[in-house]
Amino acid sequence: MKLSIERATLLRAVSQAQSVVERRNTIPILANVLIEAEGDSVSFRATDLDIEVVDRAPAMVERAGATTVSAVTLHEIVRKLPDGALVTLSDDSASGRLTVQAGRSNFQLATLPKEDFPVMTSTEYSANFAAPAPVLRRLFDKSKFAISTEETRYYLNGVYFHVAEGDTGPVLRAVATDGHRLARIDALLPDGAAGMPGVIVPRKTVGEMRKLLDDDDAQIAVSVSETKIRFATPEITLTSKVIDGTFPDYARVIPTGNTRRMEVDAADFAKAVDRVATVSSERSRAVKLALDEDRLVLSVNAPDAGNAEEELAVAYGDDRLEIGFNAKYLLEIASQVDRENAVFLFSSPGEPTLMREGNDTTAIYVVMPMRV
Amino acid sequence: MKLSIERATLLRAVSQAQSVVERRNTIPILANVLIEAEGDSVSFRATDLDIEVVDRAPAMVERAGATTVSAVTLHEIVRKLPDGALVTLSDDSASGRLTVQAGRSNFQLATLPKEDFPVMTSTEYSANFAAPAPVLRRLFDKSKFAISTEETRYYLNGVYFHVAEGDTGPVLRAVATDGHRLARIDALLPDGAAGMPGVIVPRKTVGEMRKLLDDDDAQIAVSVSETKIRFATPEITLTSKVIDGTFPDYARVIPTGNTRRMEVDAADFAKAVDRVATVSSERSRAVKLALDEDRLVLSVNAPDAGNAEEELAVAYGDDRLEIGFNAKYLLEIASQVDRENAVFLFSSPGEPTLMREGNDTTAIYVVMPMRV
Repeated sequence: MKLSIERATLLRAVSQAQSVVERRNTIPILANVLIEAEGDSVSFRATDLDIEVVDRAPAMVERAGATTVSAVTLHEIVRKLPDGALVTLSDDSASGRLTVQAGRSNFQLATLPKEDFPVMTSTEYSANFAAPAPVLRRLFDKSKFAISTEETRYYLNGVYFHVAEGDTGPVLRAVATDGHRLARIDALLPDGAAGMPGVIVPRKTVGEMRKLLDDDDAQIAVSVSETKIRFATPEITLTSKVIDGTFPDYARVIPTGNTRRMEVDAADFAKAVDRVATVSSERSRAVKLALDEDRLVLSVNAPDAGNAEEELAVAYGDDRLEIGFNAKYLLEIASQVDRENAVFLFSSPGEPTLMREGNDTTAIYVVMPMRV
Repeated sequence: MKLSIERATLLRAVSQAQSVVERRNTIPILANVLIEAEGDSVSFRATDLDIEVVDRAPAMVERAGATTVSAVTLHEIVRKLPDGALVTLSDDSASGRLTVQAGRSNFQLATLPKEDFPVMTSTEYSANFAAPAPVLRRLFDKSKFAISTEETRYYLNGVYFHVAEGDTGPVLRAVATDGHRLARIDALLPDGAAGMPGVIVPRKTVGEMRKLLDDDDAQIAVSVSETKIRFATPEITLTSKVIDGTFPDYARVIPTGNTRRMEVDAADFAKAVDRVATVSSERSRAVKLALDEDRLVLSVNAPDAGNAEEELAVAYGDDRLEIGFNAKYLLEIASQVDRENAVFLFSSPGEPTLMREGNDTTAIYVVMPMRV
């Protein structure tokens, strides 16, 4: 193998690959990236056995071939090379080294045989569709905060990505919950997605896939099977196993009869929650919301440290209500609101509360109260 | 006590105080800041028993008095208050709470009696002088990287700040070393500093004091005794114990007969060292410098990972030389050079090397070689 490639192009391709590689792993080949050069392009493939990413880039290939080197070392080297440099990669199978050369810099990196690299088995996908990057970005960005980190509830360690019946017909839906709060985000169903099986996309995949979605104009090719999901742009293909488990019946958790409606400026609300929570250093800080006609009083009482209170003007016309929440959960859902006011729908101090953005029902959040 | 103060003024004053407070300590009062209001100003005092900082700010004092509250909590609250807010602090000795009020926010914080706050004993200083902030900044910024972190060599855990005989007369000098490298920085001796005892300023004090030195036009009042050092601006007074130990005779370590002179662009040199060091993930990465007429080849050889080589154009006219250094040490000294080229003076592969900026002898660095 011998090829030349522009430093910026190489850096972009290697960046995505190396981020999939787990920093600590006991199988040496998994620390490596598989470099394959052929025709007028080169691909960089990395895997942690659950996620595989392949990044293709144009290159001047003088001699086709393939080898593997440490993903982190290659990335570090390319990152530190001067901008605009032309980088030459060439392997010498006799010495078992890959030479990286740019300007007056010359590196020989240890390689492992390409045959040892675990390439993910191919899959028959039962649904293939295209979705605009901003649509996927919204689905995952607004739901991922609610992913559970409890390893024993492995079926909650991801976003449940599926087709559901929305208010006005079938939708593409992302749901995440940790049992304390839940996010349910809907998007228009793309052509070809109707037959897609529901899958739980693991947390790490959500993070890696997110890097494909920055370009507002990009169309992402999505393929889904019972066991795998694939996201692809013309340059990058990310394939991931999905979580082998059953996502709970979340519809039961979403309250439908909550009628006590409070509307508040989401940013003001978040700042006030953040301030009153300051007096308590405990991890699960309870904030009390006391509602009265068009008036909300937020308070925290931490016997040792002190107490805090803040009043906010809100739109509220129902009976007096006192209800408590984990401050972190309130902050997280309030920060999902980006356009309109936050609308909270309460039932009673012991029942789950619903929040949404104005009257938009395509993004709803449920949060369980805490005793205060 | 009751006073009103502008939020930005309060934030600045509390920021400096809270940063001295140790996050983990077993004596509750040490987590607190002592607030004292009198006349038309308020002061905030914090200590870790080794360093004491007092920050004064103008305030509208309605009722003089003093109390103590958690430095971190007060700082967090003030930080989160909206910019431009007027903050009222009032204590109620009956309830033992300090009320912090701003707009519609109201906080009651637990207090501890002001009598319990350990105020540092006053000292007779044997030298008092004023030094421009940029002068002190240079002395400490360019030396602190070499401070030892080995707790057993406690007498190296700071910067030795003293009066010495420079090339052209007495100088104010900062020296730090960890046994592997050394920095010696000189400044013009300020009026009144001649009789100053040499003191070892602890690492934490160097960091805290640095925050007083950002203003290029500021004059810093420095007071030194055998046991303490004090740095003061009109607003802030920082008093610190010095390390009770004897700084080693560093002059012995500084080579005087090194004649093999290499001159190199410091930024290019640092980048090249950084790049070749990439192939080795070991903590003490040895970089080999091979010098020949006007030519430097930097190389690293890591048998498992690979090897790296880079050539640099330098000015060198002496015999061939091969010498190895810890990559981190080379990077750190090269990054101290901010104006001219770095000038290295070598002796032999086993002897300490000297580095300075051009022909400036007021900042010199010594680094021990490594076997490569």
